[in-house]
Amino acid sequence: MTEDVRMERDTFGEIAVPNARLWGAQTQRSLQNFKISTEKQSPELIAALAVIKRAAAEVNLGLGELDEQKARAVMQAADEIIDGKHPDEFPLAVWQTGSGTQTNMNLNEVIANRASELLGGERGEARKVHPNDDVNRGQSSNDVFPTAMHVAAASAIVTHLLPALKTLRDTLDSKAKAFADVVKIGRTHLQDATPLTLGQEFSGYVAQLEQGIRHVESALPHLYELAQGGTAVGTGLNAHPKFADSVAAAIGKLTGLPFVSAPNKFEVMAAADALVFAHGALKTVAASLNKIANDIRWLASGPRCGLGELSIPENEPGSSIMPGKVNPTQSEALTMLCAQVFGNDVAVNIGGASGNFELNVFRPMIAHNVLQSVRLLADGAHSFNENCAVGIEPNHERIDTLLNESLMLVTALNPHIGYDKAAQIAKKAHKEGTTLKASALALGYVTEQQFDEWVQPKDMVGRTA
Amino acid sequence: MTEDVRMERDTFGEIAVPNARLWGAQTQRSLQNFKISTEKQSPELIAALAVIKRAAAEVNLGLGELDEQKARAVMQAADEIIDGKHPDEFPLAVWQTGSGTQTNMNLNEVIANRASELLGGERGEARKVHPNDDVNRGQSSNDVFPTAMHVAAASAIVTHLLPALKTLRDTLDSKAKAFADVVKIGRTHLQDATPLTLGQEFSGYVAQLEQGIRHVESALPHLYELAQGGTAVGTGLNAHPKFADSVAAAIGKLTGLPFVSAPNKFEVMAAADALVFAHGALKTVAASLNKIANDIRWLASGPRCGLGELSIPENEPGSSIMPGKVNPTQSEALTMLCAQVFGNDVAVNIGGASGNFELNVFRPMIAHNVLQSVRLLADGAHSFNENCAVGIEPNHERIDTLLNESLMLVTALNPHIGYDKAAQIAKKAHKEGTTLKASALALGYVTEQQFDEWVQPKDMVGRTA
Amino acid sequence: MTEDVRMERDTFGEIAVPNARLWGAQTQRSLQNFKISTEKQSPELIAALAVIKRAAAEVNLGLGELDEQKARAVMQAADEIIDGKHPDEFPLAVWQTGSGTQTNMNLNEVIANRASELLGGERGEARKVHPNDDVNRGQSSNDVFPTAMHVAAASAIVTHLLPALKTLRDTLDSKAKAFADVVKIGRTHLQDATPLTLGQEFSGYVAQLEQGIRHVESALPHLYELAQGGTAVGTGLNAHPKFADSVAAAIGKLTGLPFVSAPNKFEVMAAADALVFAHGALKTVAASLNKIANDIRWLASGPRCGLGELSIPENEPGSSIMPGKVNPTQSEALTMLCAQVFGNDVAVNIGGASGNFELNVFRPMIAHNVLQSVRLLADGAHSFNENCAVGIEPNHERIDTLLNESLMLVTALNPHIGYDKAAQIAKKAHKEGTTLKASALALGYVTEQQFDEWVQPKDMVGRTA
Amino acid sequence: MTEDVRMERDTFGEIAVPNARLWGAQTQRSLQNFKISTEKQSPELIAALAVIKRAAAEVNLGLGELDEQKARAVMQAADEIIDGKHPDEFPLAVWQTGSGTQTNMNLNEVIANRASELLGGERGEARKVHPNDDVNRGQSSNDVFPTAMHVAAASAIVTHLLPALKTLRDTLDSKAKAFADVVKIGRTHLQDATPLTLGQEFSGYVAQLEQGIRHVESALPHLYELAQGGTAVGTGLNAHPKFADSVAAAIGKLTGLPFVSAPNKFEVMAAADALVFAHGALKTVAASLNKIANDIRWLASGPRCGLGELSIPENEPGSSIMPGKVNPTQSEALTMLCAQVFGNDVAVNIGGASGNFELNVFRPMIAHNVLQSVRLLADGAHSFNENCAVGIEPNHERIDTLLNESLMLVTALNPHIGYDKAAQIAKKAHKEGTTLKASALALGYVTEQQFDEWVQPKDMVGRTA
Repeated sequence: MTEDVRMERDTFGEIAVPNARLWGAQTQRSLQNFKISTEKQSPELIAALAVIKRAAAEVNLGLGELDEQKARAVMQAADEIIDGKHPDEFPLAVWQTGSGTQTNMNLNEVIANRASELLGGERGEARKVHPNDDVNRGQSSNDVFPTAMHVAAASAIVTHLLPALKTLRDTLDSKAKAFADVVKIGRTHLQDATPLTLGQEFSGYVAQLEQGIRHVESALPHLYELAQGGTAVGTGLNAHPKFADSVAAAIGKLTGLPFVSAPNKFEVMAAADALVFAHGALKTVAASLNKIANDIRWLASGPRCGLGELSIPENEPGSSIMPGKVNPTQSEALTMLCAQVFGNDVAVNIGGASGNFELNVFRPMIAHNVLQSVRLLADGAHSFNENCAVGIEPNHERIDTLLNESLMLVTALNPHIGYDKAAQIAKKAHKEGTTLKASALALGYVTEQQFDEWVQPKDMVGRTA
Repeated sequence: MTEDVRMERDTFGEIAVPNARLWGAQTQRSLQNFKISTEKQSPELIAALAVIKRAAAEVNLGLGELDEQKARAVMQAADEIIDGKHPDEFPLAVWQTGSGTQTNMNLNEVIANRASELLGGERGEARKVHPNDDVNRGQSSNDVFPTAMHVAAASAIVTHLLPALKTLRDTLDSKAKAFADVVKIGRTHLQDATPLTLGQEFSGYVAQLEQGIRHVESALPHLYELAQGGTAVGTGLNAHPKFADSVAAAIGKLTGLPFVSAPNKFEVMAAADALVFAHGALKTVAASLNKIANDIRWLASGPRCGLGELSIPENEPGSSIMPGKVNPTQSEALTMLCAQVFGNDVAVNIGGASGNFELNVFRPMIAHNVLQSVRLLADGAHSFNENCAVGIEPNHERIDTLLNESLMLVTALNPHIGYDKAAQIAKKAHKEGTTLKASALALGYVTEQQFDEWVQPKDMVGRTA
Repeated sequence: MTEDVRMERDTFGEIAVPNARLWGAQTQRSLQNFKISTEKQSPELIAALAVIKRAAAEVNLGLGELDEQKARAVMQAADEIIDGKHPDEFPLAVWQTGSGTQTNMNLNEVIANRASELLGGERGEARKVHPNDDVNRGQSSNDVFPTAMHVAAASAIVTHLLPALKTLRDTLDSKAKAFADVVKIGRTHLQDATPLTLGQEFSGYVAQLEQGIRHVESALPHLYELAQGGTAVGTGLNAHPKFADSVAAAIGKLTGLPFVSAPNKFEVMAAADALVFAHGALKTVAASLNKIANDIRWLASGPRCGLGELSIPENEPGSSIMPGKVNPTQSEALTMLCAQVFGNDVAVNIGGASGNFELNVFRPMIAHNVLQSVRLLADGAHSFNENCAVGIEPNHERIDTLLNESLMLVTALNPHIGYDKAAQIAKKAHKEGTTLKASALALGYVTEQQFDEWVQPKDMVGRTA
Repeated sequence: MTEDVRMERDTFGEIAVPNARLWGAQTQRSLQNFKISTEKQSPELIAALAVIKRAAAEVNLGLGELDEQKARAVMQAADEIIDGKHPDEFPLAVWQTGSGTQTNMNLNEVIANRASELLGGERGEARKVHPNDDVNRGQSSNDVFPTAMHVAAASAIVTHLLPALKTLRDTLDSKAKAFADVVKIGRTHLQDATPLTLGQEFSGYVAQLEQGIRHVESALPHLYELAQGGTAVGTGLNAHPKFADSVAAAIGKLTGLPFVSAPNKFEVMAAADALVFAHGALKTVAASLNKIANDIRWLASGPRCGLGELSIPENEPGSSIMPGKVNPTQSEALTMLCAQVFGNDVAVNIGGASGNFELNVFRPMIAHNVLQSVRLLADGAHSFNENCAVGIEPNHERIDTLLNESLMLVTALNPHIGYDKAAQIAKKAHKEGTTLKASALALGYVTEQQFDEWVQPKDMVGRTA
């Protein structure tokens, strides 16, 4: 079965491209040279590249570097990509040239062919818009790709991750408030400890997410600095003097984010520190979510032979015969993806540390991992929120049973009967497997009324948030 | 636009499923509960699950646990999946329940519906084959999924990775032999050192891959041990006594690999050590490939301002105006994917270390990373071989120039004129930026004839392989 | 050989302790139970614990919780530890109980015995100051140890790391300014690219460190929040209501850093997110330093067969006979320790993610890694600065030679003779191994005067910082 | 206070060295140039270097390359170091030159000075044995240091780690056998599952360690291949043709391990793959130990509000008032050090991947991490064995209670009363919080006698090992 093809050409020569596709020679060549695994450039990155192309065309038009007709066509073609109208035109692997040149060319070629068609021309060699001279005008892959990485990462964080974290924080905060009076046993070293309220326990999760949101936000300013205008090595050779600032402003307008032209282009092209640091914030959020998800699944363990203090929503069949067996699948998905984020962090670190001279050539890999981590954490937090957190409820009876069985409450008797007698009560209860109250009464150190009055867990949970 | 749906049912209740799809209620439910990122269960894993289902049906037929008609239909449906005929039926995310239950059910449901159709029945509730009672007979997700992970990983290693590594090793070995007489400067600490042959340098790469192949092979025996037959917690409750061994044998026949029933089912279900260790071998291969790819790109650096000792194939446009600028894109792809493998290693370690009691619930994540790493290394080695290694050629002139400019050759004069005079020659040459020969002649310590006779780099490269 | 011992006692019973040592029963018991490797609790952590003990005594005195004589003695004993007067009294392994309880008790015991001696009493059972009732008053290991981790980390960062980074930044900045007019070849993909100045190249390093300093500083606010006052589970049970705020203020006064009482004690005791995030900033600095150290060692490679653009200080013998072979040992130390920081990051992540309920019990390991990373980066940056960066000098002749041999300069002819003729010149030069100028003159496209006037690398380096 | 010093000299010039120390100029210079953190070269590595020096002297004597008097003195001095008689003579940091040259020289200098004294000579410039010409004869740091890394790692693994793992395996195996009849509830997803025996649960740990021992052993053959004889770049320039094999044999005799001369010296000097792979086995063991330690601490959680199925030894005070609160401190130490091993793995990977051309210059860092990991796992397994595993006992009463409260046992009724009635019993018990038996009797589906006869957990645990 032969496919309908046309010949496209680059400086390297002719190559056949499927006629149905908008891409050109360099994209096709990359497809053939890099048949490596299944990971493709992220949609977020493609969209960011399209935003850059649109902004560049607009700026070039304003600076008189591109004629109006071509500029408008490029902008329209880019808009179509941003709007998701060409999902099948960006087939390149993450594992390609380390500068992302081939994906930049993929954008240039698709936009050139599409813009040509918008102008009534053909796709292919006779096109009315040139991938390099027009779409890539004033740009170099070396400044375009780092710019796209910052734009994609910052956008995904602001529009996707931060809202998901805030929603989960709010849910947990409402739980913390709802559970403010549920006194329960505390646990340290997995061992019974002094009591706290379930609300206090959940307030810790809320505080973790609060801090996590701040950590992620602190990574944004560096991401807002764009390489665009540095061209091949950071000197801005061949770029119009006003190009860098104007493009950053145009990208800012398109995205609604406060992008600026990086004060030092050499740093932002030769390194990827902004992304390494941003991923440092992401992995911190992963540490928080992992702790929260773990606590929830342990507190919901059971139904009979675990801790059993919480009920979580049942979203799918657990056991057909065994009622009450609710597998903590949302916690499992969340802890798995946190492990992935920790792995991605290492890949990003190695890539970020490995730039040479004027260029870091681990870019598509870094972009892939950062954007995947953002997606994992955002979607993971959202899924955990919707399918688990919102439905968490305390098992009051179980919580009370454990609290009252606990021997830690004996400390409440210290002020009344002294440390020695209190310890004696606890020891007897432990040895005989009875409750504190039974032991205390048996030893005759307190009356039942005194015990009930003095041993009040709710008086032991303090005022600390 | 409403989609054509049918109602499917599980113990949890009814749920609408697209009529065009073979999957059932539990798959559909998972799709709705785990909208997390874009990573799907790997095709290698789906195929391995189908192999297990086919083997189980065959064994159940033999043991009289499943009637022949159903068994044959299940086997045929599984075969179709193995043959890649149902690529769109396995839509579930990596990020689901940590036991992989939902993907096991995805297989059970698709096979049940497809087998029903093969028997002239419907898909859906009225199907002639039952996902649990028939397709999953004698199995539990808890033993199926770990089995699939071993089958998929071992198969991918044996059929994909090892051949790719061997091919690259062979290419480099032929280069080592071809370059056996090319004497060149050695470099330690990036500084000029005593000479060796380019063949010797490449022989080091060959030895690395030789060892790497052995390392990977040493991980196979543990992977060949299968959990199948352990059922829910490893005790084999409800499984036929002959099921475990028979299924392992059947899987062995289907795959051509020497799978056996794991001697201890508790280990292989509660842990994932075989995969953690296998990934330890994979990351060692990544360390080797990273070194090789790095050396190649540095030796090919230039064309004028780098080391320039090697030429590598030009596969795509570098600079339109700048001849000889060949970006080492295959090295870049390879070093990027090695960084990814190092990252994946961490995710696998965390997952592998995090089992509790009778089950490890980080399985889909572990499978995803192991299979991705195998794919990356196999495809990466293949691509690097085809598009770079086979075309590597020495730049003899450059190699000779550097060798002769080097001051390290002065050590060859030691036996003839003594250490002190030799050092004096080198110092003068260094200070004045001249060659050793010019310096030696200027100092009058040797004649031109003596210099040419005594300073013979080829005599300094030894006999070591 | 029998050692002179005394008997110490804890709730567990009697145990012999060397008479020469100030520690008590629990320290001795930990020594015997945890004979694991050679890593001890960091001196920075011991000092931070002593600061806490001093602050607590002062606050307890002010609140009337501790009598003046004892409080003064505790404060004096703590001061002695802070002043480094008892270096041999803190022998415990990192690998102990995960709450750090044993090291907290080590401090309590040493201070109690030493304070007793200061009051004219004995060390041992008859001591005048009690480790728990007096030194640990109002505290729990569960709030002391997290507090110490924050105090130690913040102090080490502020007094050790940030100054070292700023000094290196300043050195590189002075180099950037000194090298502002040194035009050199740029390199992307390790291939010759358009020129820039050596000053611009170094300005990238300066910008990396600038950003790194900001990243590290952004981690301080969370570290400034202290757990002290949370006692066993975060509720503050048994702590004086004013204790938390007062201790934070006292620690702030002692350290000169703006510590505050953590608004949520549950977060700071059950998690270690502040340290996970801080290490995220540390690893970002490691990525920066790795890139810088790598560039320097490559640019200084040679002396004859490398890039050779920079000279670095010779600090130790390289080759006895080979002048000019200067091994880049400071770069090697720096890149090695950056790799360690990346490794430490993973350990910190795993520890930080692994808290359960009211306590994280991976604390000594986290503290060990964070403090080691701070030390490595601070000392590494300092050593690299003193022994390498300050002495970096350009090899002007080599830089000029490479620049002029480069074919990239041909782009300067485009505006004058057109793209096609320029490309023709470059191709001829590449093919024949000649210079651009020779090729241009041979082709007759320009005169020598025109070539010299038009091909001016300094005009190609732009104005971008 | 001035220290008593003598002047030592290297090719770099004179330098003052403390008279009390045996080291010379290069060691002293390194001390001054690398004031970085507190990590010193591992004792295991120093001992391995001394073994090499001893072997080399013996071989050089045999080959007539070193006169007998000097050779004997060098051998005796090396023996003293191997015997631990000079612990203060090896002060160099891990963070030095990446080839380990300075530590090789440290050995050469100490041995030369000590050998000189043994021959009645002085230490210092007038010494009777030369560090380079005699002690380092036929060697280069570039082959000595990789050799030492292999010797140290293999020795530590064989004499320290494998015995510790085997002892722990044996302890757990004896527990598995002792607990063979203790039927308990199984847990998957942290949820109640079908029963198994405690012996089966422990048999999984035994199998993990069995496999781990095999994995570690599979790393030894590559470690047994030694670089010695490769000299500067792997060609063996200036080494006697018989030196490589003879030294490997001599080292084999001294250590009792089957060392051989590496068939390819370029691989073993330019890469560190044997250590990367060996650490891959170490991290697998860490994954196993982490799982085991975690299970134990969870099963011992309580005493009242956790799972409480196991008792572990109480080694130190938990709570003074709270009997039965035994913090799982050995599990905590073990899980912390496993996290460290996972971190070290990343550092080793980065170092191993970062060789260039003829030399890997991340060696001291790699050695540091590998040897630390071996020490951590060996000591950690030993400590966990002695202080925890040997004393683990089941809490039979608690185990029985949980088992009988569990609703999973209802599956045993399926064959007798059918699935539907069984499910009904379980649902009623779950809803009303009663036992299965009570529910079954209340529903009238079975008699008490039938229930007791049919619901026999011990019949549900199968025959699988």
